[in-house]
Order: sequence, then structure tokens, then C-alpha cells
Amino acid sequence: EMESWSFLDTVESNFRPLVVIELAKGTKEETIEWFTKRIVDKKANGGAQLLIKPLVTENGVENIYLVGASHLRLLLGAETVGLVKECNDNSMRTFTYSSRKTFKDFADDNHNFLTMAECQYIIKHELENLRAKNEKMIPGYPQAKLYPGKSIVRRLLTSGILVQIFPLHDREELKKLRHSWYGRVKVGYQPLDDIRCYFGETIALYFGFLEYFTFALIPMAVIGIPYYVFAWEDYDKYVMFATFNLLWSTVILEVWKRICAILTYRWGTLLMKRQFEEPRPGFHGVLGINPVTGREEPVYSSIKRQLRIYLVSLPFVCLCLYFSLYVMMIYFDLEQWALDYHEENESNFSSLMLYVPSIIYAIVIEIMNRIYRYAAEFLTSWENHRLESSYQNHLILKVLVFNFLNCFASLFYIAFVLFDMKLLRQSLATLLITSQILNQFAESLLPYWLQKRYNRRMKQRMCSQKTDTDLSLAEQVNMEKEMGTYLGTFDDYLELFLQFGYVSLFSCVYPLAAVFAVLNNVTEIYSDALKMCRVYKRPFAEPTANIGVWQLAFETMSVISVVTNCILIGMSPQVDALFPDSKMDLVLTVALVEHLLLAIKFIMAFVIPDKPRDIQMKLAKLEFESLEALKQQ
Amino acid sequence: EMESWSFLDTVESNFRPLVVIELAKGTKEETIEWFTKRIVDKKANGGAQLLIKPLVTENGVENIYLVGASHLRLLLGAETVGLVKECNDNSMRTFTYSSRKTFKDFADDNHNFLTMAECQYIIKHELENLRAKNEKMIPGYPQAKLYPGKSIVRRLLTSGILVQIFPLHDREELKKLRHSWYGRVKVGYQPLDDIRCYFGETIALYFGFLEYFTFALIPMAVIGIPYYVFAWEDYDKYVMFATFNLLWSTVILEVWKRICAILTYRWGTLLMKRQFEEPRPGFHGVLGINPVTGREEPVYSSIKRQLRIYLVSLPFVCLCLYFSLYVMMIYFDLEQWALDYHEENESNFSSLMLYVPSIIYAIVIEIMNRIYRYAAEFLTSWENHRLESSYQNHLILKVLVFNFLNCFASLFYIAFVLFDMKLLRQSLATLLITSQILNQFAESLLPYWLQKRYNRRMKQRMCSQKTDTDLSLAEQVNMEKEMGTYLGTFDDYLELFLQFGYVSLFSCVYPLAAVFAVLNNVTEIYSDALKMCRVYKRPFAEPTANIGVWQLAFETMSVISVVTNCILIGMSPQVDALFPDSKMDLVLTVALVEHLLLAIKFIMAFVIPDKPRDIQMKLAKLEFESLEALKQQ
Repeated sequence: EMESWSFLDTVESNFRPLVVIELAKGTKEETIEWFTKRIVDKKANGGAQLLIKPLVTENGVENIYLVGASHLRLLLGAETVGLVKECNDNSMRTFTYSSRKTFKDFADDNHNFLTMAECQYIIKHELENLRAKNEKMIPGYPQAKLYPGKSIVRRLLTSGILVQIFPLHDREELKKLRHSWYGRVKVGYQPLDDIRCYFGETIALYFGFLEYFTFALIPMAVIGIPYYVFAWEDYDKYVMFATFNLLWSTVILEVWKRICAILTYRWGTLLMKRQFEEPRPGFHGVLGINPVTGREEPVYSSIKRQLRIYLVSLPFVCLCLYFSLYVMMIYFDLEQWALDYHEENESNFSSLMLYVPSIIYAIVIEIMNRIYRYAAEFLTSWENHRLESSYQNHLILKVLVFNFLNCFASLFYIAFVLFDMKLLRQSLATLLITSQILNQFAESLLPYWLQKRYNRRMKQRMCSQKTDTDLSLAEQVNMEKEMGTYLGTFDDYLELFLQFGYVSLFSCVYPLAAVFAVLNNVTEIYSDALKMCRVYKRPFAEPTANIGVWQLAFETMSVISVVTNCILIGMSPQVDALFPDSKMDLVLTVALVEHLLLAIKFIMAFVIPDKPRDIQMKLAKLEFESLEALKQQ
Repeated sequence: EMESWSFLDTVESNFRPLVVIELAKGTKEETIEWFTKRIVDKKANGGAQLLIKPLVTENGVENIYLVGASHLRLLLGAETVGLVKECNDNSMRTFTYSSRKTFKDFADDNHNFLTMAECQYIIKHELENLRAKNEKMIPGYPQAKLYPGKSIVRRLLTSGILVQIFPLHDREELKKLRHSWYGRVKVGYQPLDDIRCYFGETIALYFGFLEYFTFALIPMAVIGIPYYVFAWEDYDKYVMFATFNLLWSTVILEVWKRICAILTYRWGTLLMKRQFEEPRPGFHGVLGINPVTGREEPVYSSIKRQLRIYLVSLPFVCLCLYFSLYVMMIYFDLEQWALDYHEENESNFSSLMLYVPSIIYAIVIEIMNRIYRYAAEFLTSWENHRLESSYQNHLILKVLVFNFLNCFASLFYIAFVLFDMKLLRQSLATLLITSQILNQFAESLLPYWLQKRYNRRMKQRMCSQKTDTDLSLAEQVNMEKEMGTYLGTFDDYLELFLQFGYVSLFSCVYPLAAVFAVLNNVTEIYSDALKMCRVYKRPFAEPTANIGVWQLAFETMSVISVVTNCILIGMSPQVDALFPDSKMDLVLTVALVEHLLLAIKFIMAFVIPDKPRDIQMKLAKLEFESLEALKQQ
């Protein structure tokens, strides 16, 4: 195989640029030479055996390089990263080059067997796995140390020589995707498979979840509407609505796991073996031996990390939470003060003053959120996690807890300290609607508008009137490299998570919340799609089998909402009236119902299988086959 | 390999009997001939390639056969069942014949590389995997149908031709084990590794859990003693004790998972791949194609099974639970009636009458327990589960729920309906102590005494005065085949589970429960050990990596105990006195504390890793190696 491989590489017949590498301006010649040599060098010599070409623009060579690979190289790379593809007998199997003929749609001349996103993922993986051999430093930069096994690309990135690596858009494909996704007015599902082919599984799964979640909210919304229309205030109707909501939210989260399994089985990521994770770029430590791989790499004591987490980060987060609660109390004081002031001297000025506390609080919350986000990122980075996944989980947890408190603390205070249901409903509506409008604006429309203006200027500067698809490669690269970088699905999930909180935590007080959530999500799908296609650089595809820590976050929220809803119902005057003699009986009944509901939730989560039967069967079949194969050996 | 293999088998130099097969008296000659031929036949011809010899006693041949295997055959069998053994570099790896030289203590002439229990497990596995080829029925028994792929041994068992298969004791080894286990008075741990070598992982893990659990109860017992000695009744002391208990029970269950991982890693079962499970013997259905294996086997619709579970078994269990509660209510009525009768006419007879309700209730409970157990077994068998594991889980769940109610319903009634703490303490003590004494007697001492009497008679009949180790093989087999069959760890775990309930559910009322539990468990270890070594046939070793559904059962119990303890503390007069003005505040405080404790429990369970760091590392290392090996291919 090795022979035919290097043979094909020398032909280099049709170079298709897939990934762009931008080096810093003024990077030394010897560094560039060494780096490009390592990229094209044979695997046997420790190279990546990829193809690379400098980008020639009107201004000459600008330290921008295009990376591609031969068809054969990509197929071998697909085997390395462990891609799972569909076979001729409709089963999903891990791709290997030797068994390539058994795969559906495989033909030696079919260059579409791997999607472009997969090719780019393979190239990214190969680049990141380009490791130092005997180099002690990056040639030309003695301060950028290397040691055997260190990822060269990661060192180049951390030392600032490599500005960015990003995959190129495929203008033709993108246009088709845009059209089928949001280009025409239609009723129907999103083209999730196409999204997955273009953007990869993580992003496709986010849009799949967004769509599923929107559909799942529709029953809640439909049931909620008559409460608003007929102004129902009956006790039993509210109890019915809340009970339905609680059980429904359990069911939808369990069913999502099944749908997620169906999607990721089809996409092959459910079966994909997790690769061994390399240390994240920011990870540092004393050079030592990794006990798992036996390779040389920085080692950092796990006890030190635990100490940093529990002795610094945890107290800091608690302090922030306390501070946030303190600010909230000040807000309520201000509110009261403004109300008193308005009652004392009723004037235009005083009625204007009524709005001041809310405005100040909103601004302060936003500022706190941003500061906290930076602090959380700094702290999590300082905790020095070896793995990107572990870093992400700790960051998500920190941000999640703080955002939860920031969003819901005032509502909890109104509900369970002030006991003011009218104010609660009002605050809930205001918070939900304004946050949704602001989010959509800040997240998609504003960047879109900025990007559009920038593009227009760029084109004017280029003195051309071409449409997107007519741009030359150089123009395309120059335009895309200036686009913003999509930072992952974190903020999108966070938004959905908080929305789920608004809908479920106080669902029996404000049944209309689900209606607004559905309306928001319908437009959210479009604005998020717009964001992905128009505003940001194309992100690298990221294979994933589930939505990870978010499943847990949503499930926790639905447990908390059982508690809050039971208390709210218990506090309602209608229920109060049912127990005229003894408040004790009321409280005990509420507590009993709450425990029953929680028990039912857990039993339901236990009884509903996480994977549909046919997926279970297919997985069992594969496992059986591999056991049989082992026996045959 | 095949050549050398059949070569060795023909030598048959030193036949070591490992497993005994007892056929029914009067089994037809042609059947025996066919069956033994299949057992000794070459693998290539679909045989098991084992060695078999009839047992010759004084009465001639009695349809009892001894099965053994050549050393080479056992090694190849070890590879088939996927045994994991320690390598020369101290890592645990799946044994393969080709890599045999890399394993610790391996030598071609070392016949102790595999323990006797492992050899017996391999033979059992090979016998059970002896499958019909083209036979349509068992020769000589036209009503015992076969189809290609059907396990012959299982058909022989279900049609009554095969009476039993059991592994032989090794009298020498057993004597050593008995000595180190319970033969001398000593303070120290049990020889778990020796137990595992002799009885296999499932039983060793039970004794490991029993020992661990006993040690884990000691802190509770130590803290509980002063409450009894000084008759402490202070509110804060009880709260402290209960809080400690609740957190402690969470910690011990989490820590057990880690210890379990350490033990099963050392024993190799943590890494052992689960074999594909064949249908259990009792499973029936229409002959079809198994979608997983593609083999012919009985198929039974999963929907039918679900219907049977949810429409018949579930209502039946609920009915039984209701009936059990009803009986309990009658008991309390009787109790009240006896009390009234005693107060009216105080006589010796009336004071004797006071005990009658308790005695009747105890007897009725015992009868109900037995009837329910049969019903549960019948129903679970009728549900027609394909897998033994699934059958076991459904049976355990049914029996567990009923036993839980039977044991604790009266205590719950006394605590939360009658509010009689004194009676609760008294009932708890009575129930705990009597059940422990009865259990130990019924479970071990009685069978031991019966067995001993039987053995004595046997020996007298044989007219010999030999000790155990001097018996001839024929005498040993004849004695062992009459011994009772150990039915698995179910009842032992159930006993521990109920004990855990007595200790934790009402711990703040009766702190002395832990003391009795510890005392009981110390003797339990000895009586269970006696039972295993003296009373029962040797059971087949059963590899396992954890205690399965019992972990879940214990964790559920510890969640329930948070609720009960919080309520008990809330009801105590001391706590009552703290909230003189408002009972509402009391209830709300208790509810808040309960929710906090539950939250802490779940967070602790989430934060404490299930496997110790070094085991995680070793597993990661193995996974990394297999990924690397795949890449090298």
C-alpha cells in the first residue's frame, strides 16, 4: 500500500483546496520551509503526506497556504480517524481501506464518497497529529520549545506563528444548502442530513435538538393558549397543566435520547470509537511520561488540579453567586424605594424613575455576566485540564450555575419570598420576551448586518460586481479569513436551556411561556441557520454521538421544576381554600405529591430505553460479529 | 494448532475429573452413545473435544459420567470464553493461546495456570455450547426436538434426560480454604482471592461486599452505642446522628463501587468482554431467525412480553402489595383487640393472648412470602424472557418490592400513622433481631446439621471410617451429588438489603440497629462460609464485574431513608419544641433540609468517581493500546 500511496501523491493531478493555513506576517523563511516540508513529507518520515500550495493574490504571496490531499490519502485518513460509513448491506461499519469495496457508493473514481466536511476533518486531524521528532524548538524561534511527540501545529498556534487554520466554504454546496434550509418559505423539517454533510455532526445535532425541542413544546403551547384566552384560574386546571408539563418534560428528554441515537447511528458517530485525546493547547506541566501512552508529554498532578478546583474555583463561584444575590436584593430595595418615591410625589419624573431600577439591574446583570464569563474562562484555563472535553465540562458547569442564578433568582425571590404571583407572571413575561428579542438581535442579525457591510466594502475595494459564487479562490479566501469564528454550540444550548427554565420552572403560573418559546424557536432556527451560512467562517466538523452535558443540564432543570411547580400550586389561593382548617395538611399533601411526581419521573427515565429497539439490535449484531471474528482468529 | 491439539487429546495421559454429569436412570443406550460421542468429538466435527469417563462404583455403572479436558484444550477454551489473566508486566490482558508466553506463571507444564474453578467454568461453557447440527431430535427420544444451533445440554436438561451437571470439589483445596477462611480464630480479612479461585467471582464478590458492608457499619455502630448507654434523647444529637448516617450511607455505596472495581480488575472480570448470551433454558417461542446472530432459534415477540409484564405481572404485584397491606391492617386491629381484651379481664390467659396477634402475623407473613416467591417465579418464567439476566432482574425486582413492603410496612404504619416512637423502636428491635436469628438458623445451621447427619449415615452405609480427604472418587461423587444446590447469591443479598433497611430507614429512632447488624454480619460471614464449604454442592464459577441490580437497590434504599429520617426528626418532640408558634415553619424547614440532603447525595454520587484513578489509568492504557494496534494493522 505504501508504494501506491507515494506514487499517487507525486502525481498531484487535481489539487482541491480544503483547508486554509494563515501564518503570521513576517514568519521566518526557514520556519515556513520546515513546516511545509513536514506537511508534505511521507508518513514513514513522520510527515502528514498532504498537499500544500501557497495562495497567490494580487499582492503576491501573503503567508496564506491551501492544504489538500490526494483521494487515496483521504481514504487512508478516514481509516485513521475511524469514520463509520454505510455498507452495501445497509449496516454501518468502521471504514477500512482494505474493505472499501463493501461500502455503499464507493468507487475508486467517486471522489464524493467522503463529504467535504469529512475530508476537512481528516486533514485537521492529520495536521494536529503532526508531531515533533528530534526538533528541540521550532526552527527560527528558539523560544518555541518542542519535545518528541509534541503536536507541531499546537505549538505553532500557542506561540503565535500560526494565526489560524480553517476549512474553506464550498460556495456551490453552501448555496444549495441555504436554499433547502431557509431559502424558501416552506413547512417541514430541516435538511439535517445535508447540514451534517456540510457542517458536521455537532452542529447538525444542535439544529436537530432545536427542531425537536420546538416540536416538543407545541403540545404545551397548545394547552397553554386557552388558559390565556379564557383567563382560566381554576385550581384543578392549573394542576392538570403543571402535571402534564412535568411528565411531558420527562418524556421529551427521554425520547430525545432515542432520536439522538437514531440520528447518530445514521451518521455513523454512534459507533465511532473515541480516539485517544491529546492534551489541549493551553495545557502545561513538567515534561514527563504519560502513564497511558508511555509517550513524553507535559504532566500535571491531578491533586494540584483538584486543589485548584475545590479551594479556588469553587469558593470563587460561590462568592460570585452570593454577590449576584446581593445585587438582586439591592435591586428589590431600589424598586421599593422608587415605588415609595412615586407614591410620595407623583410626577412625570417619578413615574419615569419607576423604570430606572429595572434598567440598571438589566445592565448590571449583563455586565456581571460578561465579567463572570471571562473569570470562568480564566479560572478553568488556570485549573489546567489536560483534555479539551474536561475543560469544556468545567467551563459549562461554572457558566451554567451562574446564568441559572442570574436569570431565575429574581423570579424565585418574587415567587417564594414576596409571594406575589401577579408580579411573578409579569416579570416572567418581560424577562422571557426581552431576552429572546435581544438574543436574536445580538446573536445573528447584528453580526449578519456587520458582515454584509464588510463584504460590500471588500467587494468595492476589489472593484468587482461578482456574486458570491463567482469569486476567485484568492478573493474567497481573503474574505473568509476575516469572518468571525464560530465558537461552538455553547451559547446556543445555553439559550435553549434558559428558555426551558422559563417554560418549565413556573409553567403553572404562566402557561403562555411555551407559546413564546415556540415562536422564538421557529425564528431561531432561521437566524441560527443564517449565522452559520453567512456570518461565520466554516467551522471544522466535529463528530459527536450525543449532546453531552446538556442532556444532564436539561434533566436537572426538569427535576427542579417539579419542586417549584408543586410549591407554586400549593401556594395558590384555590388550593389553599381546599384545606380551610389545617395549613399543615396542605403542606404535607403538597410534599407527598411532589415526592410521588419525582418518583414517577425517575421510574419513567429508568423504564424508557435510551435507544430504540432496532438500533439496539443493530448494535448487538455488530458486537456479536466482532466477538465471532475474534473467535475465528 | 488443530493437529497438535488432536494429538494431545489421543494421549489422554492424566485424566483429571472436573465436572460430573448425571443422566436419568434408564436413559437409552443410543442416547448415551450419541451424547458422549458429541462430547469427545473434534471441534471441527461440531464436538466439544472434551474427555469423558463413566464412573464405576460398587454397584457398577450408574449413568454418572466424569468430564475432563486436556491441558491444551483448556487453554484454548480459556481463549474462547475470553478469560483475562495477569501478564508478566503486571497488566491484565485477555488470554490468547498464541500470546500465552507473555502471561505470568505460564509454563507449558504448569497445570495450575488456570484455577480449577476456571477449568470447570470452561467445561461448562463448552458443554452448553455443544449445538445440534442436523439432528431433528435427541436420538431415542423423538419428543425432545432439536434444531440446528440448539444447545444439546439445555434440551437434555429440559426434557429430563440430564439430571444435573455440577463441578467436583477439590477436597485438598477445600480443606486449605476452610482453614484460612474460618478454620482458625483470627482477626483479619477473608481470603477473597482464594475464595475467588475456588468458588468464582460472583460468590467472592458477595463475601467481599458482606465484609466491606460490615466494616462500613462499624462507624455507625460506634456512634450509636453512646445513644443507648447514656440514653441520649437530645434533638441535636439525633439530628447529627441521622445526618451522619445519610451522608455515610451515600459514601459507603460510592466507595464500594471503587473497591468492586479494584477487586474485579485484579480478578480480570472488569475487562472481560460480555459474551453473547444464549436464550435461557426455559425460553420458548416459534422457530425463527435471531436478528442479531442470524441463527435459527425460538423467537418471541417483545410486545407480547411487554403486554404480559404490564397487563398481568404488574397488576398482580400491585394486588399482592395491597393484600399484604390489608393483612397488616388486620394485624393492627387484632393487636388492639387483644390489648382491649387484656385490659378488660386481666388474667394469665389474656396476657398470653397479647402475643397471639404477633405470632399469627409472623406466620402469615412467612407463608405469604413463600407463596409470593413461587408466584413471582412462575410469572417471571411465564413472561418468557430470552436472557437469564433479564429473567433474574425481573424476578429480583418483584421479590424485592414485596419483601420491602412486608418487612417495613408495619414500621411505616407505626411511625407515620400511629406516631408511636416507643412502639417503633420496640418493633424495630424485635423484627431486626428475630429475623437475624431465624435467618442464620434456617440458612446455614439447619442445613449443615442435616447434611452432617446424612454424611454420617452415608459413611456408615459405606462401612468406612475415612475422613473427607480419604474418600475414593466414587464415594466423593456419590456424596456430592446428593448435596443441595446453591441457588445463587439472591437470598444472601436480600438479607443484607433488608438489614440495610432496618439500619438506615429509622436510624435516628434506634441507633443500636447498626450494632446488631455488625454482630450479625460477623457471624453471617462464618455461617455463609460454612454453608458454601460444607452444605452445598460446589457451584459453577460465574464471572462478574459488579453486584449488578443490588447496587441500584441499595442506593434506592438510601434515598428513601433520607425521606423517612427527615420526617422522623421533624416529628420528634424536641424539634417540635423549637417551633412553638408555627407548625408550618417546622414542616417547611424539614422539607427544605430533606431536599438539601437529597441534592447533596446526588452531587456526591456524581462527584465521587466510580473507579479509582489507577484503575482508570490502566483501563485507558489498554484502550489506547488496542486503538494503536488497530492503526498498525
